Amino acid sequence: MKEIYLDNAATTKLDPKVLKAILPFFTEKYGNASSTHTKGREAKQALEKARKTIAKSIGAKPEEVVFTSGGTESNNFTLKSIAFNNKHKGNHIITTKIEHECVLRSCKWLEKQGFKITYLGVDKEGFVIPEELEKAITPKTIIVSIIHGNNEIGTIQDLKPLGEICKKHNVYFHTDACQSYTKTEINVKKQPVDLITLNAHKIHGPKGVGALYIRKGVNISAWQHGGGHEQNLRSGTENIHGIVGFAQAVKLALNNKHIKHMTRLRDKLIKEVLKIPETTLNGPKGDKKLCNNTNFAFKRIEGEAIGGYLDLKGIASSTGSACSAKTLEPSHVLQAIGMSKADANGSLRLSLSRFTTEQEIDYVLKVLPGIVKKLRLISPL
Amino acid sequence: MKEIYLDNAATTKLDPKVLKAILPFFTEKYGNASSTHTKGREAKQALEKARKTIAKSIGAKPEEVVFTSGGTESNNFTLKSIAFNNKHKGNHIITTKIEHECVLRSCKWLEKQGFKITYLGVDKEGFVIPEELEKAITPKTIIVSIIHGNNEIGTIQDLKPLGEICKKHNVYFHTDACQSYTKTEINVKKQPVDLITLNAHKIHGPKGVGALYIRKGVNISAWQHGGGHEQNLRSGTENIHGIVGFAQAVKLALNNKHIKHMTRLRDKLIKEVLKIPETTLNGPKGDKKLCNNTNFAFKRIEGEAIGGYLDLKGIASSTGSACSAKTLEPSHVLQAIGMSKADANGSLRLSLSRFTTEQEIDYVLKVLPGIVKKLRLISPL
Repeated sequence: MKEIYLDNAATTKLDPKVLKAILPFFTEKYGNASSTHTKGREAKQALEKARKTIAKSIGAKPEEVVFTSGGTESNNFTLKSIAFNNKHKGNHIITTKIEHECVLRSCKWLEKQGFKITYLGVDKEGFVIPEELEKAITPKTIIVSIIHGNNEIGTIQDLKPLGEICKKHNVYFHTDACQSYTKTEINVKKQPVDLITLNAHKIHGPKGVGALYIRKGVNISAWQHGGGHEQNLRSGTENIHGIVGFAQAVKLALNNKHIKHMTRLRDKLIKEVLKIPETTLNGPKGDKKLCNNTNFAFKRIEGEAIGGYLDLKGIASSTGSACSAKTLEPSHVLQAIGMSKADANGSLRLSLSRFTTEQEIDYVLKVLPGIVKKLRLISPL
Repeated sequence: MKEIYLDNAATTKLDPKVLKAILPFFTEKYGNASSTHTKGREAKQALEKARKTIAKSIGAKPEEVVFTSGGTESNNFTLKSIAFNNKHKGNHIITTKIEHECVLRSCKWLEKQGFKITYLGVDKEGFVIPEELEKAITPKTIIVSIIHGNNEIGTIQDLKPLGEICKKHNVYFHTDACQSYTKTEINVKKQPVDLITLNAHKIHGPKGVGALYIRKGVNISAWQHGGGHEQNLRSGTENIHGIVGFAQAVKLALNNKHIKHMTRLRDKLIKEVLKIPETTLNGPKGDKKLCNNTNFAFKRIEGEAIGGYLDLKGIASSTGSACSAKTLEPSHVLQAIGMSKADANGSLRLSLSRFTTEQEIDYVLKVLPGIVKKLRLISPL
């Protein structure tokens, strides 16, 4: 059977070159980076080299990059540590209605600890309105957290105006860039962002590793305590193979050709799928959308059912965040852009990668219209 | 140059059979375990199979095992989540002076959040006195956390009497078993323990993955929030390759022959090293010490210096916890068993693995006396 993987927003296949970079750290270079002997120093060197690669990719200094176990940890770490460390300043946090669950649920937990959270709405394409952000800031606001590239509908927020508002009001600005990293520019010299969540497994790196960029001077301290690793900001034996793989993945991903390739296939997919009757595109178009994201609403049918039939044809797709796949609630992101529950439930995400081929897209375009037609014939709606 | 790795308490080399188990999850089986399509289900199956393996190894039910990023996370998760969830019952926590830094610093952080911590002393071999534990328990005590096999001196606490005291007083009992796992029996049907920290990289598994056993009914909730993974107890895309590698490492490690092999070489090493003048063994002997641990105090010289010379001969050793290698403070564990700072500074840990050979031990025994002698000749003490 064919194997067409169009769920790259959930996770990606490991690049074989990343595996090649990882392997020596499984076989001979297995030292603990905190050990002072030769084997330990070898690991430490690899760790610091990887840190430089990640830092350089976003215009940061190496000491501003802290490795974590992934995007979820980086987002939890940011929100909770900033909240606990800056209580003296205030107890107000601003985020949006279209964040990943790990931001939303960290905020829910912080509410129980006495913090107040404002969940900003977004426009029909998923954009935060800068004026609304500015209006929401109070003297008690300590941090604003806004997702950079939305994982469901691909909306890329313009970090500059949002960050400038935060800077003006002396409020930290954090962005979750798990989906956007290497797919659109992120540069802390140009974008006034204080903290950035990054991860490896969305860019053909290994699972279980991520990073947090922390601008020098930000008042944050460890959320996970222990041996004082990562400049005392994140303890735990460093996951060297993961970190080395992450850096290699970044090197390979930073290539405009990949963006062009994904954009071209994405636009072909969008153009052709929209020819199916009663079908609309969720989220923005063009440069404002992640180059690998498509998300469609098919009237009168269930996205889950389409996904099931696609799976039978060997095509992996998703109805939203993989993390929320267990729940039957319609996507909070689609509801936030004003869609009805019925339309949200009729949505399907097809997310590409640089490994996606034209033949694969052609095959999807061949089978999808028939699946939609069949499902509509049996639809009670 | 020779490469003799005797720092297995810091981290271990990956077993080639673990690598073999991991590889398919890097190449073809790269799905997100939360995705509902075929690739996702394939990952989910591997995840649940691994959970069963780990659960079975300690006599637990699969649903009582939660995967984490490692021992440090499991210890942080336990202490902080139990503390925050059981505030209504009390604000008192009991631990010991010989815990790993991640327990001690989590406790220090909890002190800042209003919790009271009792740090129990230990006897000269590193054992907690059950009567002292019982005396320390108050009506406000919510959890007792005691390391199972000490990472520096190898003391194996007898979990049964300690756990029974906790049970009697209706207090949770947690143990950090990172060092002891697979090296001495851990069975939740026989030992009344409520939470157990486990990790992979100390048993020839990959770095970046661990687990927490949580006895059914324990009042704990997520400390890392997000997509609701791991029965809503630990969010973050599951590190499938790491988890599969962890389970494979457990399967390979659970073998009494390994324990016998390490014990024999350890005892030979101890016997011969103690022939060096003015040298003593730190911690207990025989079955009460981890089968792979040796820790010696050499009078009038620095452990760091011995380690440096051993490193030049291709032998990796340690003066204590790898995590604390950065600090110049003498080991808190050695101080807790009553050693002077000078004697603690003269200590060296040589930790074996099942891959350690007799030839390697013989080589260490050949070079170590000369190094000690040379250092003593130039010692100002």
